[in-house]
Amino acid sequence: MLGILLSFRAPLQTTFYAREGFVIVALAWIALSLFGALPFVISGAIPSMIDAFFEMASGFTTTGASILTNVEAMPRSLLFWRSLTHLIGGMGVLVFVLAIMPRVGSAAVHIMKAEVPGPVFGKLLARVSNSARVLYVIYLLMTAVLVILLVAGGMPLFDSFLHAFGAAGTGGFGIKNTSIAFYDSAYIEMVLAVAMILFGVNFNLYYLILIRQVKTALKNEELRWYLGIITASVLVIAVSVASFYDSLGLLLRDVFFTVSSIITTTGYVTADFNRWPLIAQMVLLLLMFVGAMSGSTGGGLKVTRVALLIKTGIQEIRRTISPNRHTSLKFDGKSVDSQLQRSINVYFMVYALFFTFSLLFVSIHAPNFITAFSAVAATFNNIGPGLDMVGPTSNYAGLSDLSKIVLSFAMIAGRLEILPVLILFSPRTWRKI
Amino acid sequence: MLGILLSFRAPLQTTFYAREGFVIVALAWIALSLFGALPFVISGAIPSMIDAFFEMASGFTTTGASILTNVEAMPRSLLFWRSLTHLIGGMGVLVFVLAIMPRVGSAAVHIMKAEVPGPVFGKLLARVSNSARVLYVIYLLMTAVLVILLVAGGMPLFDSFLHAFGAAGTGGFGIKNTSIAFYDSAYIEMVLAVAMILFGVNFNLYYLILIRQVKTALKNEELRWYLGIITASVLVIAVSVASFYDSLGLLLRDVFFTVSSIITTTGYVTADFNRWPLIAQMVLLLLMFVGAMSGSTGGGLKVTRVALLIKTGIQEIRRTISPNRHTSLKFDGKSVDSQLQRSINVYFMVYALFFTFSLLFVSIHAPNFITAFSAVAATFNNIGPGLDMVGPTSNYAGLSDLSKIVLSFAMIAGRLEILPVLILFSPRTWRKI
Repeated sequence: MLGILLSFRAPLQTTFYAREGFVIVALAWIALSLFGALPFVISGAIPSMIDAFFEMASGFTTTGASILTNVEAMPRSLLFWRSLTHLIGGMGVLVFVLAIMPRVGSAAVHIMKAEVPGPVFGKLLARVSNSARVLYVIYLLMTAVLVILLVAGGMPLFDSFLHAFGAAGTGGFGIKNTSIAFYDSAYIEMVLAVAMILFGVNFNLYYLILIRQVKTALKNEELRWYLGIITASVLVIAVSVASFYDSLGLLLRDVFFTVSSIITTTGYVTADFNRWPLIAQMVLLLLMFVGAMSGSTGGGLKVTRVALLIKTGIQEIRRTISPNRHTSLKFDGKSVDSQLQRSINVYFMVYALFFTFSLLFVSIHAPNFITAFSAVAATFNNIGPGLDMVGPTSNYAGLSDLSKIVLSFAMIAGRLEILPVLILFSPRTWRKI
Repeated sequence: MLGILLSFRAPLQTTFYAREGFVIVALAWIALSLFGALPFVISGAIPSMIDAFFEMASGFTTTGASILTNVEAMPRSLLFWRSLTHLIGGMGVLVFVLAIMPRVGSAAVHIMKAEVPGPVFGKLLARVSNSARVLYVIYLLMTAVLVILLVAGGMPLFDSFLHAFGAAGTGGFGIKNTSIAFYDSAYIEMVLAVAMILFGVNFNLYYLILIRQVKTALKNEELRWYLGIITASVLVIAVSVASFYDSLGLLLRDVFFTVSSIITTTGYVTADFNRWPLIAQMVLLLLMFVGAMSGSTGGGLKVTRVALLIKTGIQEIRRTISPNRHTSLKFDGKSVDSQLQRSINVYFMVYALFFTFSLLFVSIHAPNFITAFSAVAATFNNIGPGLDMVGPTSNYAGLSDLSKIVLSFAMIAGRLEILPVLILFSPRTWRKI
């Protein structure tokens, strides 16, 4: 309705620059979260508008951080809406819009640029609306298969749908106070753990598999890093928490599920990792920053960026050792040009700056360092649960309103790869050219 | 003596590449710390070699982190040696060697490159040994003036010398269990606070003042950032801790001293900032990363790098808003070329990687996140005191041997701007060309 009202005013200018694209995306996500919050406020289920906005920003950005202290008391209608935002948010609301409105044309490229997470290496699909449609079909089919598998494991249909939405969008809103631990089923946990990992994979690879280029897909360097990091993390954490478990099966089940949930930035919980030793928590905290693969529904820095970060470091050492031998940085067999390298370097800096400022604001009211640090890490990277006061068995209800507002914007900034939100707040954006 | 022994073997090759320079510097700092530790181990004052190595690495790198639980029980001879390492370390042991041995020639450039902290913008002094000598004279004169001022304030001569050494090298080893708070003198605290800030200034600026280019020196952009950050930090912390103090004078005295001590990476203590609210601690933690000016005796990322980091972020927003208008990044009136920009970006990444790995190792035995995080931040940035278990009224004695070894190397890596230490550990370095 708001769109129809707005369309009555004919635009003075129809040319479309990057600036407008970024502002549209940022405003759209804020507007979505505000409107999405209305059912909660009107029904009285979440009386505070700030809380409801936080919950919806968390939903659409597929973060999964919640301010609900007793989620089981919520009406099923609101629970359904809450989890549906994960499905919608998952592939980006605007990819969704593009998929059902094919005649947007080339102006949509700028919107796509802001929307698709991660540095995009191969332009696999040329036309925007086509690509959106193909990816969207893959996404919905995978979600449907997940629903069937969950129902087959004995999970009620309603719960299966909602948890599939949460896994597909790598969101992680639970509908039980103890999240996935409630079902206490090894089958359900394994299905979800594998599903989360699959939704954390670059969707272009599924497209490659669809057009029978399975070999190319499996050779993908980012995929190898992704699976390598998962394996290494499971091993390190399993060793460090071994003394907490009597059975190796239960140990691996908890650790694998937690690693899968955190690296894909989903945030479903089966084990209270707040009680794990510091080294295990630190590995999880690192995984929060790594995030899933680029071109997936996950958040974080993205595996490509982290891999390139490490490769840049190694290259620098090599360069200093043998300054005359010129080695170019390679990723996925192709050499990374200086333009892309620069943009990744700069992203990393903007990321660090945004993180630092959010941390400062949250520190004004947060009770301690680990709460503040992990709250920013868990929202900015779109994970959900952090540590200590915002840990897996707790939630964000206890934070101050200022913290909730800052974290809401951190979620949106994290989801949109920061720049759109910064551009929205830059005075320069609103100046006339 | 070791040098004389080594000189008996004639080198097969006399050509000198960057690789050799870096390895020499890294090995020299490790050897210095090992040999420097001998008096402590032989006298039995510090029975453990690992503890003594930590203490000496901390001394030579001008960190000031200590494992001594009762520093007042130490003999004065060892206290003197301990603080003297700050004076020696301050300008870099090898600048010191260069200053007294003028005939090293051009091979010294590679050693200088590894030694002088911070990205060097203006090559003010052409010849290495000359420049080392001039800077060294300024450094010693300033230290002498500080000794006189401290004695004038009623501090015993011995204490004055040792504290001046600690301030000059921005080290921070105290000789009282309560550090500077022991003297409880506003005059002494103000003299030291101002002295620390002055030793955190780029020494090239003092050279400019010497040759009467005072205006150029005062116009320096890094200096303005440095003073701006100090002012802003004092204000933010003063507001946040206001409720802890009855008197505005005492409040400002404690806050100014602490900010000066932390940003210059000295680490002298007058107030127990472990009890301050989280936001104040967070600002201090940030200052630990900022560090002092490049070309000073301080550690950290250096003000130039942080300023360029922020400027790069702002430039990126501007670029996205108006992609056609090409704006080049400027610092100190000169545009920063892409080579320098790249090297700062890469430094930032290598810094983040080294920090992350150190944090993981320290987390294996550390009791909690804030201890592990601040211990790495305080040693890698060469400050000294961290927070919680390694906080201002505590020390590093309680950490495990593994943590102490990791933190010792973090101190040396931080002091040598990381690469020399990484190159030392790279298998490629030891291969024949």
